[in-house]
Amino acid sequence: MTKQKTAIQPIRAQNYAQWYQQVIKLADLAELSSVRGCMVIKPWGYMLWESIQEQLNRRIKETGHENIYCPLFMPLSHLEKEAAHIKGFASECALVTHTRLVSEDGKLRLAGELAEPLVVRPTSETTIGELFSRWIQSHRDLPLLINQWANVVRWEMRPRLFLRTSEFLWQEGHTAHASTEEAQVETLKMLQVYKEFVERQLAIPVLVGEKTANERFPGAVNTYCIEAMMQDKKALQVATSHFLGQNFSKTFNIQFSNQDEQLSHVWTTSWGISTRLIGGLIMVHSDDDGFVLPPRIAAMHIIILPILHDEAKNKAVLAYCQQLKTILQAMHYDGRQLQVHIDQRDKRGGEKNWDWIKKGVPIRLEIGPREQEHQTVSLTRRDLPHHQRTSCPISTLTSDYITGQLEAMQQTLWHRAQSFMREHIQFIDHKDALYDYFKQKSIPGFAKIAWHKDNSQLEQSLKEELGITIRCLISTVQPEKCCFTQKETDVYAIFAKAY
Amino acid sequence: MTKQKTAIQPIRAQNYAQWYQQVIKLADLAELSSVRGCMVIKPWGYMLWESIQEQLNRRIKETGHENIYCPLFMPLSHLEKEAAHIKGFASECALVTHTRLVSEDGKLRLAGELAEPLVVRPTSETTIGELFSRWIQSHRDLPLLINQWANVVRWEMRPRLFLRTSEFLWQEGHTAHASTEEAQVETLKMLQVYKEFVERQLAIPVLVGEKTANERFPGAVNTYCIEAMMQDKKALQVATSHFLGQNFSKTFNIQFSNQDEQLSHVWTTSWGISTRLIGGLIMVHSDDDGFVLPPRIAAMHIIILPILHDEAKNKAVLAYCQQLKTILQAMHYDGRQLQVHIDQRDKRGGEKNWDWIKKGVPIRLEIGPREQEHQTVSLTRRDLPHHQRTSCPISTLTSDYITGQLEAMQQTLWHRAQSFMREHIQFIDHKDALYDYFKQKSIPGFAKIAWHKDNSQLEQSLKEELGITIRCLISTVQPEKCCFTQKETDVYAIFAKAY
Repeated sequence: MTKQKTAIQPIRAQNYAQWYQQVIKLADLAELSSVRGCMVIKPWGYMLWESIQEQLNRRIKETGHENIYCPLFMPLSHLEKEAAHIKGFASECALVTHTRLVSEDGKLRLAGELAEPLVVRPTSETTIGELFSRWIQSHRDLPLLINQWANVVRWEMRPRLFLRTSEFLWQEGHTAHASTEEAQVETLKMLQVYKEFVERQLAIPVLVGEKTANERFPGAVNTYCIEAMMQDKKALQVATSHFLGQNFSKTFNIQFSNQDEQLSHVWTTSWGISTRLIGGLIMVHSDDDGFVLPPRIAAMHIIILPILHDEAKNKAVLAYCQQLKTILQAMHYDGRQLQVHIDQRDKRGGEKNWDWIKKGVPIRLEIGPREQEHQTVSLTRRDLPHHQRTSCPISTLTSDYITGQLEAMQQTLWHRAQSFMREHIQFIDHKDALYDYFKQKSIPGFAKIAWHKDNSQLEQSLKEELGITIRCLISTVQPEKCCFTQKETDVYAIFAKAY
Repeated sequence: MTKQKTAIQPIRAQNYAQWYQQVIKLADLAELSSVRGCMVIKPWGYMLWESIQEQLNRRIKETGHENIYCPLFMPLSHLEKEAAHIKGFASECALVTHTRLVSEDGKLRLAGELAEPLVVRPTSETTIGELFSRWIQSHRDLPLLINQWANVVRWEMRPRLFLRTSEFLWQEGHTAHASTEEAQVETLKMLQVYKEFVERQLAIPVLVGEKTANERFPGAVNTYCIEAMMQDKKALQVATSHFLGQNFSKTFNIQFSNQDEQLSHVWTTSWGISTRLIGGLIMVHSDDDGFVLPPRIAAMHIIILPILHDEAKNKAVLAYCQQLKTILQAMHYDGRQLQVHIDQRDKRGGEKNWDWIKKGVPIRLEIGPREQEHQTVSLTRRDLPHHQRTSCPISTLTSDYITGQLEAMQQTLWHRAQSFMREHIQFIDHKDALYDYFKQKSIPGFAKIAWHKDNSQLEQSLKEELGITIRCLISTVQPEKCCFTQKETDVYAIFAKAY
């Protein structure tokens, strides 16, 4: 297929932000709604979220967590109890003040004013705090390992589809433990679960590290994160895991009696991943022809495209497509049955083909009268350049061949993203070089630099001067000297411009 | 097991409402939260909701619907557009008026007042109306068949767990069609999907019919429903399906050009089932010892209870339990792998056994040193009276035997509930007999009586006098005479006291 013009205009190199919006629009993933900052997730986008939910939910359950559902609302006084927490969310809280409408002179008036406003949850630590204080009495009740899938609201003045929306979907894990060590182990265990899931299923390579004090979750003792590099070399925080120490257990009086009948406050954690991940998936793998869907997370592996321009042959072509579908959907890849769909819409073959390129389906099979007659298929893999078709006889469409193609695509995406990130992380050993690096006209990538944890003010001024933040702190192999203060340190800071 | 005292106090016959609360409490399904009318669904309750979601979602997809996610909020002006709709929901709307909190003299003050309040969705017809008007242009865009799983809020002054809560979880289907016939077919098709699902999987027999004008969904042309009988002989509406005609398409200007290029408004439907269904499940099958879980909807089929009172033998007992678990979880029932769990908690055997009776797990296996030595199991089915144990050698635990036990339990629950409902529907052929029937001291059941559809005022006065409503209208086989007005009619009304 020779086509000079790309499906997405502008292309990445011209205007990355607009390219991102166009990819979403042309793949029909989501759109903004008439409510400020809120989005509608359309079928093709929601299928992806369902795949993410299914695969991550399995991992959350396998690590011993149980799902619950907590109320959407929380009393304002609960949120206020934890000082850092309320400070962190005050500027973006949706508040319910009334519970009724009454008609007066033909106009509606708000009524049923609440004695205390309710906050639409921005996260559920305070609700969980109250529940845990009731549910936990003895060491036998620990560890308490729960999770919920829910919508949360953080009012957003500059919305961007998937990346920043006033309402988003996520899972939030909340756990309570009998010792600080056990809670710390849990915090890091779930970070590893996220890393494994994101890397293995979404083919997104990540850096794993700790946040600085400035970037911590409001109320946490430590926040850990996984960070990914987008194709514009900006960073996206993909998931976080928080060690909350006894901050919330002291605020909400979550105490347990240990084996010696002594009372102690529990240690808690929380961790989450949201629909923001879909924004990352789009920005890591898509190209100038649209979305590219890694096979292991795809809710549709193969699209069959019948070319129906010869009425005398349409019936035979469709029957052949159906036969192919039956063969293919008996196969399994990565523990799931292959999802195969036939696009029977009344549209030209080329148009249909481009629709599915833009949607990023891993494998396309174009089937016209010629393919039917010769019992072949014309196969295209979404990750290969120029949308090269391969013609194969039906006899070669074995399970090994098809899953081999899917796995090859998964690995291609993974290695491509991994090389890209590696090539764009610059080790920097002098503070001046850090300025030079980020003062370049276009974003050069991430910078890795020896850094002392106490440089909190310096971190703030670099943010103001260069527009960069520390995405995470990563342990050094041996002690290093901080490039700014010359103090001995055991961490590198990863600096980047970020979403 | 001989035990005079029941696990639930009071028993059904003494105080049905309190019995219901105790069943929920002792099975640890849910609890009320500190936010008025909102509940926390606990792990054992949420597992049930996950099973319902999984099994119903499959049916919704198999009938051609795709899932999406719409915003939690809607502008008040949108809800106002449909007059009947706003009238129906005005008295129970949660309203967001502010989006920020600011600190002033150490106190928090509401800020960021919205120009127009936002309504927390009580249902999504108006959001969908706006989306459909953008998404639909041509007959090629029809039918448009979508669904969403979401939380909704209807402010509730007298909450009851699962049955009436200010926030609840549900699915809401929304479809648009090119003809009134097609939309009507869809409305009834989804009603049948609900009936089949509820009867086959939850073993809850239902009556299928149409609502009277008084009981219609606000904005619908016709509302259809499935209604179940609880053990106190009150009715519970389990699901509804609405034919909305062109009411919403005219309000939101959802037009399509047909094959002759002429513009027409679409016909729409909506249909939903909620966490209320769990309340119905509890009230139909549970007994004076607690919850009873139909095997086809159970997220845990078998609980293995090791009896660990002899330290020398505990290890062998646990190994034997593990062996049983491995054997059992390789089996399948109703298309799902058997879910088997070992309760290793440090508790007395009898106490553990009662915990799982109250939770309603279909099959319990008690395993002590004797069972291990003789290679037997002591098996109890939750539906059999007096919790009779059966001792069986391990060799008899074949897949046929186990799935046979599960299916026998499913059928027992089904036939028991079906007989109960049949025995308590009274055919009544005179209006005085209707009064006599419902003036009895305790609720006698449902009454079926020939009824003319125009008796709207009469319906209202029966509600006031006797506290009964028409749950649904059911077609007669041949024309009948209305028992109140003697007018010819083709429907029976099912009268009942209802939740």
